[in-house]
Amino acid sequence: MFTIMPIKGFIDDIDGFYCDGIHAGLKPNGNNDLGFIYTKEACNVKAVFTKNKFQAAPLKHFQNYGENFQTNFVLINSKNANAMTGSKGLEDIDNIFSQLDFELINPIMSSTGVIGNRLPIEKLVKGAKSFDLNAKNGENLSRAIMTTDAYPKTCLYEVKLEDGSSFKIGAVAKGAGMINPNLATMLCFVCTDANVPFEDMQESLLTNSQTTFNAISVDGDTSTNDTVMLLANAKSNSYNKEAFFEALRLVMHDMAMLMVADGEGAKKVAAFEVINAANNEEAEIAAKALSNSLLVKTALFGEDPNFGRIASTIGASQITCDEEKLVISYNDVIVFNKGEITFTTEVEEKAGQVLQNDKYKVICDLGLGEGTFTAYGCDLGYEYVKINADYRT
Amino acid sequence: MFTIMPIKGFIDDIDGFYCDGIHAGLKPNGNNDLGFIYTKEACNVKAVFTKNKFQAAPLKHFQNYGENFQTNFVLINSKNANAMTGSKGLEDIDNIFSQLDFELINPIMSSTGVIGNRLPIEKLVKGAKSFDLNAKNGENLSRAIMTTDAYPKTCLYEVKLEDGSSFKIGAVAKGAGMINPNLATMLCFVCTDANVPFEDMQESLLTNSQTTFNAISVDGDTSTNDTVMLLANAKSNSYNKEAFFEALRLVMHDMAMLMVADGEGAKKVAAFEVINAANNEEAEIAAKALSNSLLVKTALFGEDPNFGRIASTIGASQITCDEEKLVISYNDVIVFNKGEITFTTEVEEKAGQVLQNDKYKVICDLGLGEGTFTAYGCDLGYEYVKINADYRT
Repeated sequence: MFTIMPIKGFIDDIDGFYCDGIHAGLKPNGNNDLGFIYTKEACNVKAVFTKNKFQAAPLKHFQNYGENFQTNFVLINSKNANAMTGSKGLEDIDNIFSQLDFELINPIMSSTGVIGNRLPIEKLVKGAKSFDLNAKNGENLSRAIMTTDAYPKTCLYEVKLEDGSSFKIGAVAKGAGMINPNLATMLCFVCTDANVPFEDMQESLLTNSQTTFNAISVDGDTSTNDTVMLLANAKSNSYNKEAFFEALRLVMHDMAMLMVADGEGAKKVAAFEVINAANNEEAEIAAKALSNSLLVKTALFGEDPNFGRIASTIGASQITCDEEKLVISYNDVIVFNKGEITFTTEVEEKAGQVLQNDKYKVICDLGLGEGTFTAYGCDLGYEYVKINADYRT
Repeated sequence: MFTIMPIKGFIDDIDGFYCDGIHAGLKPNGNNDLGFIYTKEACNVKAVFTKNKFQAAPLKHFQNYGENFQTNFVLINSKNANAMTGSKGLEDIDNIFSQLDFELINPIMSSTGVIGNRLPIEKLVKGAKSFDLNAKNGENLSRAIMTTDAYPKTCLYEVKLEDGSSFKIGAVAKGAGMINPNLATMLCFVCTDANVPFEDMQESLLTNSQTTFNAISVDGDTSTNDTVMLLANAKSNSYNKEAFFEALRLVMHDMAMLMVADGEGAKKVAAFEVINAANNEEAEIAAKALSNSLLVKTALFGEDPNFGRIASTIGASQITCDEEKLVISYNDVIVFNKGEITFTTEVEEKAGQVLQNDKYKVICDLGLGEGTFTAYGCDLGYEYVKINADYRT
């Protein structure tokens, strides 16, 4: 028995975590572009990274520390991804940390922005030297890591255990757009004062990624910088594995949903529920194909219940399927029923009404087995093209 | 020794082939929407079809004739794909042919348009009954099969062999958009008076699909109706295998290039040449990933030499690659050279100039082996969203 309650606040409301964000001169518009997470005593850290073969320099830098290590400082910048920068990219990170004059224990860097430019070291060092390490400004940090995000992304939960103890867990994240296939970088920093062991940190990150961040992005088709990091300082001395896994799942689900709703220019979020597939793997393939289909996304944008595109995308995904067993619905409006076209004018009107909502389900019942997976996608409209045609400039 | 020369004309300039296109009342704007190809004597026919698991009714109808068969009539309509119509879709085709009063030998139907509606049988029968089977109106046919195409797609070649004999080969096709991932149906009808045996028809279609239609569309991620059909009436009594394969390759390449250049709203065609990959399979995976990446397509639209998106897409495709061996160029302008960023302001300007062209190459030298593949893609702009947000209506 445990309870998990959302509470107001940022990650700095967790005992022992400090953070802030400032403008260091990277974003021409004067917005925050550099931030940090600091713990007075070093804390345990684990991360899962992009499967992109060209991992950015900060990801290599992190992994060079080895398996289980502690850190007291994470430096995060936007506007420059420090990716495709070769060995120079790693040297630049060491160079920055060597110029800071406070005690650093295995300092970590995390970057998001344009690929293929060297970091502006002087600006970053000058900015980092100005940090107040006693600051508790979670909102400033949340804005410093934004790129094309329309809004900052944070959450905080309190977990109460049966033994009367409690811990907090919260996150700050960035990431907008369809993630895949548009490769917009996703960063998520989860902080907790739970007394979670290293092995549980790793396992819980991997397990919960499948139904959260990997349900909005396809494995392997991710940006050079994608990172989910978990920092745990054990200050609460409270822990229960089941409660912690569930709390982390909620945190990661919250952040994933905020990202998909913040799709570049997106106005709608669809949950593509594939049910009764031959197995879970095939359900996942079909659900992700739907959430990534350009034709499906533009139909959502046009509020057009074009179920032919849904069917065609499932068929193209090469999973086991049968026209005579397939049922497609928008929420509870059935538009295709086992080879029978049920798409009368009345049904079309009802389905069109569902698509006028901000959130709805597209349910594909394959009628074959017990496989199930839900992927989340957003619509694609003119704004997406505008943002991505001139993002670099 | 043989020569292959492009000549003026349509498929009806090939001995024994008759065709026409009319308005049968399917397209509300009064444009042609129904056409036919007719041969007075039955001719050999072979086709390759979509790998989509939900093949449309006309594709099943064709395959029900078995391996090697002859036909004298192909009926082609636009505006309705006769897909996801179950067994009713097959019955509708038989129903239409049963009402026509000229001699039909294994008649074939081919459809493109919206998925999930029954065919308007009365309109189609009335239209087909009005056909003049002696017509030679290739251009009318080319317009009857268009959907979102901006222009009709045809070509014609004459092949002269060393023995003094000659044959003709030509095609009429439809298909616009990125094909994959947007699933726009691609139809291509190739006619020839070459005396080509059944087994060579099949082999040449499969072989040439790889470097032509499959270089603009990814295997398996295709519409419910995609079809490439080859009709051969042997009237010329001329044949040479090597010459025929090469001529068919030219015809299919022409049609594929017209399709990619007619990407919905597209203004630019990029050839993504992946060279020196570990093997041909990996080169193909990377080249197709590039030609399908939304971020790459929008960067082309913005004329932005954003090579970071090129690199990131290659890395995300999961092929073997090494930052220290990769070279990326736009035509002859190198923007990334083996881990060194060579992207000075001068280089950026030159690369930007390349992207202002209508056609150019994006060359990715992986520096690993001898694998090579070229995929063709177009840019994605506002027009694409407009077309696909309201295509059905």
